[in-house]
Amino acid sequence: MRKEATLLRPTQNGDRYELTSPTAMPKAAGFLWNQRMMIQLTCRGFATAQFMQPEPAKYAHPPNIEAKTFMQPEQNYYAHHPGRFVYVKDEDSEHLFSAPYEPVRSPAERYVFSVGKSDVAWAVENGGVRVEMSMGLPTHDVAELWTIKVTNISSRSRRLAITPYFPIGYMSWMNQSAEWNPDLQAVVASCIAPYQKASEYFKNKYNKDKTYFMCETPPDSWSANQQYFEGEGGIHNPSALQASQLPCDDARYETPTAAVQYRVSLKPGEHREYRFMFGPAYDEAEIADMRQRYLSKPAFVRAAEEYAAYMARGSGCLRIETPDKDLDNFINNWLPRQVYYHGDVNRLTTDPQTRNYLQDNMGMNYIKPAVSRQSFLTAVSQQEANGSMPDGILLAEGAELKYINQIPHTDHCVWLPVTLDVYLAETADYGMLRERVRTANGDNFTVFERFSRAMDWLLKARDERGLSFIAQGDWCDPMNMVGYKGRGVSGWLTLATAYALNLWADVCEHEGDGELAERFRAGAEECNDAVNKHMWDGDWFARGITDDNVTFGIKKDTEGRIWLNPQSFAMLSGAASPVQISKILPQIDQQLNTPYGVLMFAPPFTKMREDVGRVTQKAIGSAENGAVYNHAGVFYAHSLYQLGGQHDRAYTILRQLLPGPTEDDYLQRGQLPIYIPNYYRGAWREFPRTAGRSSQLFNTGTVSWAYRCFAEGLCGLRGDSEGLNIRPQLPSSWDAIKVTRLFRGATFYLDIRRDNVKDVTIKHNGRTLPESRVTNIKSGESYHLTVLVPQ
Amino acid sequence: MRKEATLLRPTQNGDRYELTSPTAMPKAAGFLWNQRMMIQLTCRGFATAQFMQPEPAKYAHPPNIEAKTFMQPEQNYYAHHPGRFVYVKDEDSEHLFSAPYEPVRSPAERYVFSVGKSDVAWAVENGGVRVEMSMGLPTHDVAELWTIKVTNISSRSRRLAITPYFPIGYMSWMNQSAEWNPDLQAVVASCIAPYQKASEYFKNKYNKDKTYFMCETPPDSWSANQQYFEGEGGIHNPSALQASQLPCDDARYETPTAAVQYRVSLKPGEHREYRFMFGPAYDEAEIADMRQRYLSKPAFVRAAEEYAAYMARGSGCLRIETPDKDLDNFINNWLPRQVYYHGDVNRLTTDPQTRNYLQDNMGMNYIKPAVSRQSFLTAVSQQEANGSMPDGILLAEGAELKYINQIPHTDHCVWLPVTLDVYLAETADYGMLRERVRTANGDNFTVFERFSRAMDWLLKARDERGLSFIAQGDWCDPMNMVGYKGRGVSGWLTLATAYALNLWADVCEHEGDGELAERFRAGAEECNDAVNKHMWDGDWFARGITDDNVTFGIKKDTEGRIWLNPQSFAMLSGAASPVQISKILPQIDQQLNTPYGVLMFAPPFTKMREDVGRVTQKAIGSAENGAVYNHAGVFYAHSLYQLGGQHDRAYTILRQLLPGPTEDDYLQRGQLPIYIPNYYRGAWREFPRTAGRSSQLFNTGTVSWAYRCFAEGLCGLRGDSEGLNIRPQLPSSWDAIKVTRLFRGATFYLDIRRDNVKDVTIKHNGRTLPESRVTNIKSGESYHLTVLVPQ
Repeated sequence: MRKEATLLRPTQNGDRYELTSPTAMPKAAGFLWNQRMMIQLTCRGFATAQFMQPEPAKYAHPPNIEAKTFMQPEQNYYAHHPGRFVYVKDEDSEHLFSAPYEPVRSPAERYVFSVGKSDVAWAVENGGVRVEMSMGLPTHDVAELWTIKVTNISSRSRRLAITPYFPIGYMSWMNQSAEWNPDLQAVVASCIAPYQKASEYFKNKYNKDKTYFMCETPPDSWSANQQYFEGEGGIHNPSALQASQLPCDDARYETPTAAVQYRVSLKPGEHREYRFMFGPAYDEAEIADMRQRYLSKPAFVRAAEEYAAYMARGSGCLRIETPDKDLDNFINNWLPRQVYYHGDVNRLTTDPQTRNYLQDNMGMNYIKPAVSRQSFLTAVSQQEANGSMPDGILLAEGAELKYINQIPHTDHCVWLPVTLDVYLAETADYGMLRERVRTANGDNFTVFERFSRAMDWLLKARDERGLSFIAQGDWCDPMNMVGYKGRGVSGWLTLATAYALNLWADVCEHEGDGELAERFRAGAEECNDAVNKHMWDGDWFARGITDDNVTFGIKKDTEGRIWLNPQSFAMLSGAASPVQISKILPQIDQQLNTPYGVLMFAPPFTKMREDVGRVTQKAIGSAENGAVYNHAGVFYAHSLYQLGGQHDRAYTILRQLLPGPTEDDYLQRGQLPIYIPNYYRGAWREFPRTAGRSSQLFNTGTVSWAYRCFAEGLCGLRGDSEGLNIRPQLPSSWDAIKVTRLFRGATFYLDIRRDNVKDVTIKHNGRTLPESRVTNIKSGESYHLTVLVPQ
Repeated sequence: MRKEATLLRPTQNGDRYELTSPTAMPKAAGFLWNQRMMIQLTCRGFATAQFMQPEPAKYAHPPNIEAKTFMQPEQNYYAHHPGRFVYVKDEDSEHLFSAPYEPVRSPAERYVFSVGKSDVAWAVENGGVRVEMSMGLPTHDVAELWTIKVTNISSRSRRLAITPYFPIGYMSWMNQSAEWNPDLQAVVASCIAPYQKASEYFKNKYNKDKTYFMCETPPDSWSANQQYFEGEGGIHNPSALQASQLPCDDARYETPTAAVQYRVSLKPGEHREYRFMFGPAYDEAEIADMRQRYLSKPAFVRAAEEYAAYMARGSGCLRIETPDKDLDNFINNWLPRQVYYHGDVNRLTTDPQTRNYLQDNMGMNYIKPAVSRQSFLTAVSQQEANGSMPDGILLAEGAELKYINQIPHTDHCVWLPVTLDVYLAETADYGMLRERVRTANGDNFTVFERFSRAMDWLLKARDERGLSFIAQGDWCDPMNMVGYKGRGVSGWLTLATAYALNLWADVCEHEGDGELAERFRAGAEECNDAVNKHMWDGDWFARGITDDNVTFGIKKDTEGRIWLNPQSFAMLSGAASPVQISKILPQIDQQLNTPYGVLMFAPPFTKMREDVGRVTQKAIGSAENGAVYNHAGVFYAHSLYQLGGQHDRAYTILRQLLPGPTEDDYLQRGQLPIYIPNYYRGAWREFPRTAGRSSQLFNTGTVSWAYRCFAEGLCGLRGDSEGLNIRPQLPSSWDAIKVTRLFRGATFYLDIRRDNVKDVTIKHNGRTLPESRVTNIKSGESYHLTVLVPQ
């Protein structure tokens, strides 16, 4: 049934993917990051890079003044988009091509784009010349480390002009220039970021406003001025390359570029290897220091080793062997890497949305629980005096709430117990709850008290019906006009509040405060009752009730008729009875399922609905308006695993988070299976041409939950205060899987297989355990378990 | 001596310029506007257009999210820059070219870019096909009216695919799409401008967020999706044009474009003519209405006539015939057009800087004095309670102070009497001063009282030495750190205050308030004395004194040593004695003069000077940092004319406001001589390669003053309360000029020639007038005068 992808292939051990055409999936990209920067490189050579100072900044720019904004989905590329290119010209035949592909777009005899976990590389053969390009990052500095190797693979001697071309772009209208620095063997471009207020000068004074491109091997000629690549030939055939050397000219309030040229003669089989660094700097001294530190073959090797070790620290706590090899690959190699990215750098923002911050750090429980621990302390240290949580958590001095964080959302408190649930399951560190945390407003409470205060705020932020106010939004779907007058309520948020209260009540109970537990459980029940009373529409739950008392997300709506999140959370909160669930699930199957995953809602809106808001205006079939919004999808999977008995449904949802395994699916989604994007285009019925297309945006709260679903749901491995519970939920087509799980310092090797058992049965050292749970776990030990699950 | 430009030529009557190469001056551009929009078109077909709703908005966009900002100098163009193009492909030979030049860049056999006052046009001949393109605007609507004519000029029959291609670009990340509307015969692209706060929704609700491209003649095929022009061939050779028709596909959250294709067979000499409209709209009904109103040959003709009539209303009050034909052309055809533009649309902003608003309207005195009159009433209606003027004048409901208008500047009051001077000279309408104007803060004063209050504020806003505080800036050069701590003072502003006070004192005297006049004159003298005491540096005046009491713009400075504006205003204010002037002028000649005009200051800064500020950080040789800043230059010319006896110096400065007349000069400046740009690149000694290059930005306060200098200085025609004074100041190389001047409804024909006279002598109807002045002027009359000036 499965059609093997021929354009896209994993390497033998699955830790790389290779794409063999630059045209089939033109946006296919790899990405690397370190704690201070991120770079996404497409198969054609376009690049989007960001670094922090502390706000996100760019060192390579598009050719006009780009608006500062958050990372956008479905990034557009165009001929002048920033990128990293090498022109190669045969000086005898005049044949010109560029590696990896742009800007010349000359079809190669052989082309490989190879994305690793700690490098991105290409091998391109064109006209008897092989160009190998690869990029790595240092672990602690902002810089790109490039190796470019050119080999004569033809049977005759060749005279080549090799021209690495790293356009720097339009840096600033206030001041920009670039010149060759012979001491550094680098093009150094300088700019002043535009500002007007005197106070901004001091704020930006120490910004890294320079961009350098530095060569290990002195080039024969260079250009710092983009105009030579914008001549009559166009950047696909630059006039500059028709001369016998680059013009060696500066940019003076002109668009800077970085290009250097090597003119070489290569015998058959002979090669040249060059190393370069590209990145931002404050001044020349810093560039010199970077040269000293990195720009040599041994230093590149050392940096690559260090960086690989840094990546290895994010390899997670779960390895699986299942009948689905692509899934194994993803779970073992790529998903923990994406989880690590989120927890490690918080999406390269200084003011992550509170819900994102908590969920991204939830994933870190599976990688570095100490980081998650600290994130709770940081988050509650910014709790408001009234118990509510701010819209964003400030992570740097001078940071401020920006963009969406200036819009009041009411869901942030919910995420405290929901993410704590994983922390406690992984660590059983209830002691953290007794830490005291003082806020800027001077109040001083334990973490436990702060969580309780947050729960009290949630209980209070409800109307007389017991439904939660939505203000200008809950969660991420921008329903900014449901409740902006102060009356509208959210069905989802009321249910999420109940879910959070129940989780927190369990913790209260564990901590010996039964009275508090009882109060919060009663609150949860009140929420569930209120939703059942006001929002049950016969076959599913409504999404909300507007300022003007109009219930929406119900049968009589022709657009936005059914929403996924209220259904998932009704299962998680306990609001949905078994009878209700038996009605809800077929409705989701029928109205929301697509070949590319489950839709956030359907049908998509085709026009503004003024009592709902921005979500109804967003592009149909993308982003919030009716997309396969993976964060919602993965919650649905989570709710199915929590519910139990829905193994196939849950697996199908999870599997669809990834492109493939068929070539048609890869091509339609247009993404390598190395990360989960925040959405795939929806409107599957309305716009089949574009449905399923990946957003190409790898920032998403989905990934922590996906990892959790695989570990805790599919593999059924979840900690409690004393041990590890084991209740796998294999899809029916699987007979057996093998799992390795790191847990509290021990390593569990699980051989999970179907057998003639009534319930999950666990054998350890030949003996059957009394329950599906291992306790008294010793750090450093290995546990080899056989897990039998019912047929 | 003069080398005729061969690439650039005026048409016979000088009301058009023609450029015969698209490569020699790639940024050379024409521009058109109406009261609601502006468009600048380069010779290669790139376009920058803006319209008001009420904030400036775009309907054709670059391929990434462009930052919203004010109009920038030295706009960059790149392959994907918005433009208006026509691909023409011979279906037999497969020869492809595009008109006017981009994106194919195929060299033409004949190429003409022809810029008129009310249209921009091209004629391009390539491979035996002639393409004529021309664009006009309606007078009152936002739309481009395009005519495209294709003629077979070869001797054989041709089968052609004619493909107008008007890329719409990346409209919005929130929602963008485009489709063909068969009822309208138009590509209609839609978007939602990104927003987050609910309040922004209502503010933007009725924005014209659609862009349409509408065809009079139904095309054979179309494309609304940019991806077909971004295929492997690149936009210089689009894959889409290799098929037998355009794909007729929509854009769904993809970059919209507008392309239509006509497949025609043309016999030798045969042609096809097409008409199109391109512009923004609120909805389809509005587009249909625009179609009805404009999209036909007779309607195009009518619109062109109306628009030409609209332009003709801005033809000014001065026509000259001098030995300098290029100058005549500029004064008679183009300078009043640029003055009109400024006064008519206030630079397409809703919050013009107060100084710009007053000066732009000063120019309108020569065109439509009633507009200038109203501008004073509008300006003073926003006066602060303390008499100061705000940083910007709000012109639309909901407008707010933006960008530079959020930075406190202290010079705005100065411009009231300085610009009133021209109003009174043109109209003698002292009655305006007695109008009562109420402000939002409730105070209620006459214009006269308001001006006096502004003068009192200027007198108060000085330190104990009598020098004017600078705060974060005076005028336009962003010296934002001279006085941001509240102590720094401005030499220029103190002198400008004196100039303003003296002018206002004259008005007070005329209005019979001698006491007030005396007080303001005494204030002026105080200012002048203070500057002489603290700022005279031996050979010129200093620019200011910083917060830390450091005087700058003096001999011991190695950068920013001498500044032009304090010298000009010392002459205007009376601060500079004849002895001082005799020292200053040679210093300007020596330190500030360049072949491209006079520098604003020299030497340019090469690094930040923290006690001066942003101006020192701006790019060397451009914008404020050491450029030929024409606004400063024209004030220098004005001060020389006021001084008298500097005819040659003043003429040289004024002449250099324009490129040419030699080809070398045109090429270096890279601009058509149809407007004065705000600057030419400076750093003539440091960076000769780029010196003289035009900013290409036609928004500048220079033009009102330039017109005034020609009318009042060179021609010597200035009104007073009773008549017209006549004191020409011809450069020494000129023997005679002829001038036509409209003045208070009368027409003056002046035959000005050198003769053996001691002083200016005027003959009217054969008789010599008693003084160089005409009084008792009768509206509707013609005055034929012979004006004899000393040899």
